[in-house]
Amino acid sequence: MSDLLIKNCSVLQLARDGSSAEVLTDRDILVRGNTIETVQPTNLVNQSHFRTCINANGMLAMPGLINTHAHVPMVLFRGLAEDVSLERWLNNCIWPIERHLTPEDVYWGMLLGAIEMIEAGVTAVADHYFYMDSAAEAVEKVGIRANLGWAMFDWMDNSIIEQTSAFVSQWQGAACGRIRTMMAPHAPYTCNDDFLRATVRAAEKLGVGIHIHVSETKQQTQASRQSRGLTPIQVLERTGVLSVPTILAHACGALPEDIEILTKYRTGIAHAPKTYLKLGMDIAPVTEFRQAGVPVGLATDGVASNNTLNLWESMRLLAMMQKFLQRAPEVLSVPEALYLATVESACVFGQGEQLGKLSSGYLADLILLDLEGVHHQPNHNIPANLVYSLRPEDVQTVIIDGQIVMRSRQILTVDKTEAIKRVRSNLNRLALRQKES
Amino acid sequence: MSDLLIKNCSVLQLARDGSSAEVLTDRDILVRGNTIETVQPTNLVNQSHFRTCINANGMLAMPGLINTHAHVPMVLFRGLAEDVSLERWLNNCIWPIERHLTPEDVYWGMLLGAIEMIEAGVTAVADHYFYMDSAAEAVEKVGIRANLGWAMFDWMDNSIIEQTSAFVSQWQGAACGRIRTMMAPHAPYTCNDDFLRATVRAAEKLGVGIHIHVSETKQQTQASRQSRGLTPIQVLERTGVLSVPTILAHACGALPEDIEILTKYRTGIAHAPKTYLKLGMDIAPVTEFRQAGVPVGLATDGVASNNTLNLWESMRLLAMMQKFLQRAPEVLSVPEALYLATVESACVFGQGEQLGKLSSGYLADLILLDLEGVHHQPNHNIPANLVYSLRPEDVQTVIIDGQIVMRSRQILTVDKTEAIKRVRSNLNRLALRQKES
Repeated sequence: MSDLLIKNCSVLQLARDGSSAEVLTDRDILVRGNTIETVQPTNLVNQSHFRTCINANGMLAMPGLINTHAHVPMVLFRGLAEDVSLERWLNNCIWPIERHLTPEDVYWGMLLGAIEMIEAGVTAVADHYFYMDSAAEAVEKVGIRANLGWAMFDWMDNSIIEQTSAFVSQWQGAACGRIRTMMAPHAPYTCNDDFLRATVRAAEKLGVGIHIHVSETKQQTQASRQSRGLTPIQVLERTGVLSVPTILAHACGALPEDIEILTKYRTGIAHAPKTYLKLGMDIAPVTEFRQAGVPVGLATDGVASNNTLNLWESMRLLAMMQKFLQRAPEVLSVPEALYLATVESACVFGQGEQLGKLSSGYLADLILLDLEGVHHQPNHNIPANLVYSLRPEDVQTVIIDGQIVMRSRQILTVDKTEAIKRVRSNLNRLALRQKES
Repeated sequence: MSDLLIKNCSVLQLARDGSSAEVLTDRDILVRGNTIETVQPTNLVNQSHFRTCINANGMLAMPGLINTHAHVPMVLFRGLAEDVSLERWLNNCIWPIERHLTPEDVYWGMLLGAIEMIEAGVTAVADHYFYMDSAAEAVEKVGIRANLGWAMFDWMDNSIIEQTSAFVSQWQGAACGRIRTMMAPHAPYTCNDDFLRATVRAAEKLGVGIHIHVSETKQQTQASRQSRGLTPIQVLERTGVLSVPTILAHACGALPEDIEILTKYRTGIAHAPKTYLKLGMDIAPVTEFRQAGVPVGLATDGVASNNTLNLWESMRLLAMMQKFLQRAPEVLSVPEALYLATVESACVFGQGEQLGKLSSGYLADLILLDLEGVHHQPNHNIPANLVYSLRPEDVQTVIIDGQIVMRSRQILTVDKTEAIKRVRSNLNRLALRQKES
């Protein structure tokens, strides 16, 4: 007996090389445990053989979106730092508040942000923040898939590496494998070479990868060359960071020689265009990365810069900015954008063999979309609608690791109203702590 | 006895110069006929004195958004021309289909597009298309405010000017003033000088303005200089177009000397950033226009390039692209973006004295927003959330010209399901006509 039958939906199907997208109609998706058993024409199986059946008439199924770089608990700071530069944003707005955060704040922030993501069809997130044991508890409860990294700076001294190693040991593979972990040094400009080398040794010993910010701006690349004689990506190579699997956030200031380096390693770029636009940063060379075979994944970054965790907006901005910067509307076509959002983001996330496709043997992380809204009509071109018209509200049902986490827009795993209430009351206490300090 | 009481809402309030935004709580909005009587602290009036009362507890009221340039019936072509250049887009995709359009297609396209706009909080649109008498019928029925222009090209010969003049005579001020009209020559590159001069004479005689595309790209500016010895905006000045009130769509290729010219006339720029990004065009010099005192309004352009009629997305892209292009996150701040979306868009639309503010004597075009969604939490900064987090689904209730057109997301004026059905069946017929031709 299988566990879940998703009956009579359409299914988004991408060509193996991402060059075309089509929609198969009248399909059933059979799920056993946390895995997709098969996707087949409808009515070949009897629904009474399934513990649960979702009637998905008229809905489109596609892989859940994967957020390859975020700081989810920063949802607490939504709207607190608008219209300021990256430097002022960090030094005057974000870092002073973060000093007063508690593990409980992180728990509720992670929970609230995960709800926002699930409501928008995001089924997995690579997160980089503090008190990640609390974040992991929220992830376990809400049912999202996550790759968690506990952020470290070199001024924290090396004992932080032991502490975050203990976090990795405790949580790697937790929640039946739904939670994975990485070591998470902040960036080459905030972690010296010795600190990075010690982190690599820990990651190797633990058998995990590293999630790190790198070359956020061209200025950082220049500054690194002046101070260390190397680009930030060369620093990663020299210190051994690239010898383990990595998620590299941003890389907006990557040079051609950096891209050349990255082709030799198991790595991927997390791309968060809304942050780059809002903070007036450069856009990473997405097309060049992809042409060199370095995968690029969608990311929101934190809500303090993005303002939401809406990954559809990231996809749209990524595609539009490549067209704009190259003054070439043909680049980053609709099928490519969908391929990047699914298959390629799964690679960057580190589970390219298990996520990003609705195929037999893949993990059952999928979403059902209602495309009947006026903003989709007339429905000539569903793939284009997914990239350029879709709204988070169109996501009706979300299944993660075989579990129905949202159905008909109702979150089933946690109490959303309580999460909102707790965030509000915790923030009042946070404001008080700041005032007293 | 007044007509409508909107009870106990918050109200978005912008500084006169657009430099700051605040939210006033516990307000009542009193509407008499199509006009805002007053906005005042709640509970000063007895609701039994009103024909209709909307309890707006916890909702935010703000002016409806104004779309300053669209081709609404092109909603029929959503997704039909993706990943192609502006030239191929026009010559291979759009113009061949448009040849087969009928007035009935335009009616249903206008109706469907107007529903999409209303659902997204857009209360007025300056539209530029064909068979505008049919579009006007749809506008009259659905209840949106519109400034309609019947598109003309010089190859249509001068009788088209008489025909569209007749349209203007018939519809100017219709639907109790909710419908206004303009003459609508397509662009300087598709209308020769004589044709433009004849259009100006007609506009002057009718007492209306002109809505025209101009300098869509830098290439158009160069080509015009080569063929006519003038920039497209200089052509508009020379032919007298700028002597009447104008809406200028795009002006992405405007030069500093063009901006200088525009400061002397009653004109405004309609800015549709999603089109520019998707088609790999240049972004208009928004900051320079505004610094010179030339107002800039939000626009979607047509759905064939934008893919939606979501003006919130236009606002967000406009602000982010200015920050990005100037590598200066301080420019086009949250209050400025909201000012541009309301007060300034009303100016470009041609009703700056009557629209864009919730103030006594202004027309009652307003929207009520539910900001309780998870994607707004915690609600530290409502103005920032309006610019960077809001989704069309947050728009709960839409009032246009004093009439409740949507309430609790239900369109009250027309049958939305029928509109969708009719669009689908008409398009099947359109596909058939194309095949046969």
